[in-house]
Amino acid sequence: MSTRTPAHSVHVHETTVRVRYAETDQMGLAHHTAYLVWFEVGRSSLMRAHGASYGDFERDGFFLPVVECFARFLAPARYDHLVKVRTWVDELKSRSLTFRYEVVDAETGHVLATGYTKHLCTDREGRTRRFPKAWRALLETEVPHEAP
Amino acid sequence: MSTRTPAHSVHVHETTVRVRYAETDQMGLAHHTAYLVWFEVGRSSLMRAHGASYGDFERDGFFLPVVECFARFLAPARYDHLVKVRTWVDELKSRSLTFRYEVVDAETGHVLATGYTKHLCTDREGRTRRFPKAWRALLETEVPHEAP
Amino acid sequence: MSTRTPAHSVHVHETTVRVRYAETDQMGLAHHTAYLVWFEVGRSSLMRAHGASYGDFERDGFFLPVVECFARFLAPARYDHLVKVRTWVDELKSRSLTFRYEVVDAETGHVLATGYTKHLCTDREGRTRRFPKAWRALLETEVPHEAP
Amino acid sequence: MSTRTPAHSVHVHETTVRVRYAETDQMGLAHHTAYLVWFEVGRSSLMRAHGASYGDFERDGFFLPVVECFARFLAPARYDHLVKVRTWVDELKSRSLTFRYEVVDAETGHVLATGYTKHLCTDREGRTRRFPKAWRALLETEVPHEAP
Repeated sequence: MSTRTPAHSVHVHETTVRVRYAETDQMGLAHHTAYLVWFEVGRSSLMRAHGASYGDFERDGFFLPVVECFARFLAPARYDHLVKVRTWVDELKSRSLTFRYEVVDAETGHVLATGYTKHLCTDREGRTRRFPKAWRALLETEVPHEAP
Repeated sequence: MSTRTPAHSVHVHETTVRVRYAETDQMGLAHHTAYLVWFEVGRSSLMRAHGASYGDFERDGFFLPVVECFARFLAPARYDHLVKVRTWVDELKSRSLTFRYEVVDAETGHVLATGYTKHLCTDREGRTRRFPKAWRALLETEVPHEAP
Repeated sequence: MSTRTPAHSVHVHETTVRVRYAETDQMGLAHHTAYLVWFEVGRSSLMRAHGASYGDFERDGFFLPVVECFARFLAPARYDHLVKVRTWVDELKSRSLTFRYEVVDAETGHVLATGYTKHLCTDREGRTRRFPKAWRALLETEVPHEAP
Repeated sequence: MSTRTPAHSVHVHETTVRVRYAETDQMGLAHHTAYLVWFEVGRSSLMRAHGASYGDFERDGFFLPVVECFARFLAPARYDHLVKVRTWVDELKSRSLTFRYEVVDAETGHVLATGYTKHLCTDREGRTRRFPKAWRALLETEVPHEAP
């Protein structure tokens, strides 16, 4: 895979999430699956910032199932803390897409986790499809940061 | 609502669940929403014991959205403990259905929680429908306990 | 229980939540347990608006386990929609506390769900305790609405 | 990392999980984070099969936080289907441990997902520790398959 820090030309989208009590486990920290849900919140927010909801993508008959996910956990996130999810498109191919993520403590800026998810573009029946042009263009557009 | 203990004539279905680590929170106990998921596991298992999956119900074009849920928590469930979910049909009306539940410690038999969920029978568009006869008959049938 | 609409004198706290993809189920709607997690987000946010995190409450050695929860679902919430969670303290007793909630569509203002959670004040060992005075005072204070 | 199929000498532990309704999303399939929870169920079950609960490990003052997780999704899991989680210890070092997983359709035997989780052995304060000898021995022991 490519490098873990975004290239200069890549737009990094930021959104913030507050750690929920339901996301903690008996270790007293956010459960590792919570970060993957935040990754999902990050890419949802990125798509919204590009002017379209992933919900519209599905209404158009296309889907982006996760075919691979990876996360490295560097420091714990705790209940009620604010974390920033930084999301960027790492590889936009004709039929697949990789998002990369950094979760940072919103107060200290410390990186808590990094990771990526790889997605296929499919139709409703799960068959791999080329990205529709409009969506491809949309994901390639530079956009300003969304307000939280 | 009717009483909280099943009438003599009512079939009580039992299934067992082991508390997952992901279901705990920083209080060191199973999060209260986990019990509602176990209720759902209980009614899924009850329907399977009646010879049909709730998945078939949806494939037939019917749905049972939850319109009301209630739970009372009496004692905590902890990671890795086995709990028994006792489920029974409390009220089967023409267009709605109430399931009742008891979650008990599988080792001690202590009741950990009780509750109910009320469901409407709807079609795919969310319009209320009469239960199809076959499904009604199925839910009224007496069945032996399912093996875990 | 008391009425479902807040009394005139009661402060209603508002916070907004965006429906996550992970919170949907195969019915295409937010799963009913997601609303209970939003209730939790609502009371966490209410406590923060009163100047203290529930995390501080736990660090002081006190806990607010849920002993009862109820929700009525009136209309579905869908992926990526914004919902407003309205939370208020309904009954603050010496050893227990009831929060009430309304989840409304942030765009249309339609009520999607109502409910309540009842909590005991306990120590770390789960023994019922009187609310510490400072916390009691805090929960009785009138506060302005928190910015989202 | 090492190969994705277990070496001949490695004990592979099997446990079964039924896909819960709450684990599905609006794509109509099990959400990708559900597989990571099943991985956790798999390693919990493996440890129990070795004669000790991970809960005992924590009571001894040791913890196994996830520091890395990876999953590849090959075919979807659907509501109410039975899946088999195959878990094995891939690398047991002095202060870390890697579990590997295969999730297979219990009926057809098709592999639905593969993955791994890497864990550090820490104390309650999150400091890295050597595995206690007893636990190390335990994880190295050959054990028969656990009944479901």
